[in-house]
Amino acid sequence: MTEETAARRVRVERLSGFIERAFTAVGMPAEDARTVASLMAEADALGSEGHGVFRLPQYVKRIRAGGVNLRPDIRIERERAGMALLDGDNAMGHLVMHRAAGLATRKAAEAGVAWVGAHGSNHAGPASLYARIPLRHGMIGLYVAVGNANHLPPWGGTELLLSTNPIAIAVPAASRPPLVLDMATTVAAYGKVKTRAQRGETMPEGWMIDRQGRPLTDPRRADEGFLLPIGGYKGYGLGLMFGILAGILNGAAFGRDTIDFNADLVSATNTGQFVVAIDIGAFIDPDAFKRQIDIVWDTMKSSPLLPGFEEIRLPGERTHHIEQDNRAQGVPIHPALDRSLADLAADLAIEPL
Amino acid sequence: MTEETAARRVRVERLSGFIERAFTAVGMPAEDARTVASLMAEADALGSEGHGVFRLPQYVKRIRAGGVNLRPDIRIERERAGMALLDGDNAMGHLVMHRAAGLATRKAAEAGVAWVGAHGSNHAGPASLYARIPLRHGMIGLYVAVGNANHLPPWGGTELLLSTNPIAIAVPAASRPPLVLDMATTVAAYGKVKTRAQRGETMPEGWMIDRQGRPLTDPRRADEGFLLPIGGYKGYGLGLMFGILAGILNGAAFGRDTIDFNADLVSATNTGQFVVAIDIGAFIDPDAFKRQIDIVWDTMKSSPLLPGFEEIRLPGERTHHIEQDNRAQGVPIHPALDRSLADLAADLAIEPL
Repeated sequence: MTEETAARRVRVERLSGFIERAFTAVGMPAEDARTVASLMAEADALGSEGHGVFRLPQYVKRIRAGGVNLRPDIRIERERAGMALLDGDNAMGHLVMHRAAGLATRKAAEAGVAWVGAHGSNHAGPASLYARIPLRHGMIGLYVAVGNANHLPPWGGTELLLSTNPIAIAVPAASRPPLVLDMATTVAAYGKVKTRAQRGETMPEGWMIDRQGRPLTDPRRADEGFLLPIGGYKGYGLGLMFGILAGILNGAAFGRDTIDFNADLVSATNTGQFVVAIDIGAFIDPDAFKRQIDIVWDTMKSSPLLPGFEEIRLPGERTHHIEQDNRAQGVPIHPALDRSLADLAADLAIEPL
Repeated sequence: MTEETAARRVRVERLSGFIERAFTAVGMPAEDARTVASLMAEADALGSEGHGVFRLPQYVKRIRAGGVNLRPDIRIERERAGMALLDGDNAMGHLVMHRAAGLATRKAAEAGVAWVGAHGSNHAGPASLYARIPLRHGMIGLYVAVGNANHLPPWGGTELLLSTNPIAIAVPAASRPPLVLDMATTVAAYGKVKTRAQRGETMPEGWMIDRQGRPLTDPRRADEGFLLPIGGYKGYGLGLMFGILAGILNGAAFGRDTIDFNADLVSATNTGQFVVAIDIGAFIDPDAFKRQIDIVWDTMKSSPLLPGFEEIRLPGERTHHIEQDNRAQGVPIHPALDRSLADLAADLAIEPL
């Protein structure tokens, strides 16, 4: 029996309840604990295994060290018709981005398009969570973040000055699943490196190189090298620009100011992220738009295959199937993660998962 | 003497004047001819050699065939505080996007952020031209387009359903050049393939593959294969989503509806593009922001190098140097292009370049 098949399946609600208990135990107000837990469990339901409950022990560590504000005053600092800037007041990033996405959605209903950024935020989980909030209101959602630790240098350099700065774009369909792109601007997200390390697995060549430019495939040696951007200098440029839009424009950290939230548990990370909501009806009849997205699905899926491929996938398709399976069968909790969550439960004296 | 060193240098104003004469000769109103010529010559000044005067013979061919509306009524079809949708009325794409970028800039001055899309547009040259218009007003500019011919299949397929859908993002600095990213979501833009073909040069592996998945390096055989997206399925996903935002959302062509504007000179292309302008002052003190961008320049440029690299470049840095050189010394006109422009001048009975 491999480690993978040994993963037990835990219902999403149960997972969410466990996360909520953990946060409540370290002093988070009940409503906030529920919001964060629900978003983290959703991340696991969506198969973002590096960004859901996997992060809980580290979040708890940071909260206990005083690195997160549990009584934040998340407030609108600046606002115009097409934008707002939030001060996250060093709250859990999930709370700040949940607020940002909700505000962007409400503002877009008036202005057609609304862009809501934040500083003083923190790690908020997978990008797609917040692109999916406008989606639930029939809108297009877009999310960009500055990552919470620098894992790559500028193209041609060796100093870790950039993060994996991800983008998510979510687009509704009529009768097909929504299209949801969620990608780091690196070949692999750092969360994937961490889960490989926890499981004792190796990485394929192309994910990371060492400081001499040689392939690095042992995830436990990740500190000795850096992630590679997609398309070489293009992914570097895209990640850099996303970092400027999500970081500097919002008055948030970027470059050398980025706090490695794993290494430093106390300093405020001043994380920057933004959400854009687009009210489809401002541009085009929403039903006609959604039918066009169905046609995109059908056209792509039925088009001929390149030798060696079994199917053409659409962005979010794999996630959609994983989500259906995880919501029906439960989220797979890998044994190594299960042990660390059991330790956490004992430590916090809460009912285990 | 190589072909490259044989390129003669032509002053930007002279180039612009020639383009203007050509458009006037085929019936374009004087002011429109001046606007399009100025944008095309700017593309050449910026070193976008596949997107400037190189395209003139083909544009003229399309105009003569009746494929472009020379008396367009470019108008705002829908508008809210944070957005507008233009009907380009099948005008030259440069005119539609010039209008879109100007409108986005004016609207962003009020709303903070403004997103202006268009349908009924046409090929408009390099993406960075329109991201640079908000930039001239101290704003951040962002531009995305659906390309004007499909050059790649969905990831794992062989049917050409997608274009190179590019993105440009332009960000002002204080005392350094602006950061300007301009990239196709493919490893190489199709314009680069065309210029290689015209010059009889080969392409590096990784730009294109044939229908069996084998590397394709002869640009004259480009019809037998397709471009590769950056980062494999990631670039495919990004290009697909950009195409939906710039195409379907605007009521413009996408996928099988895309008209190959080189093969079909008559059908309206119904090209879609959008420009986003961001008024920096809505978020943060603009001077403080620009100083931060200077710091980005200095931090990246002075950081240590990976073995085998001579320098770290910032997005737009190479373009900045090329532009300075081209504005001082003139734009290099490659002999093959020079001959085709001489033929065009003779054909149109206008003063040659």
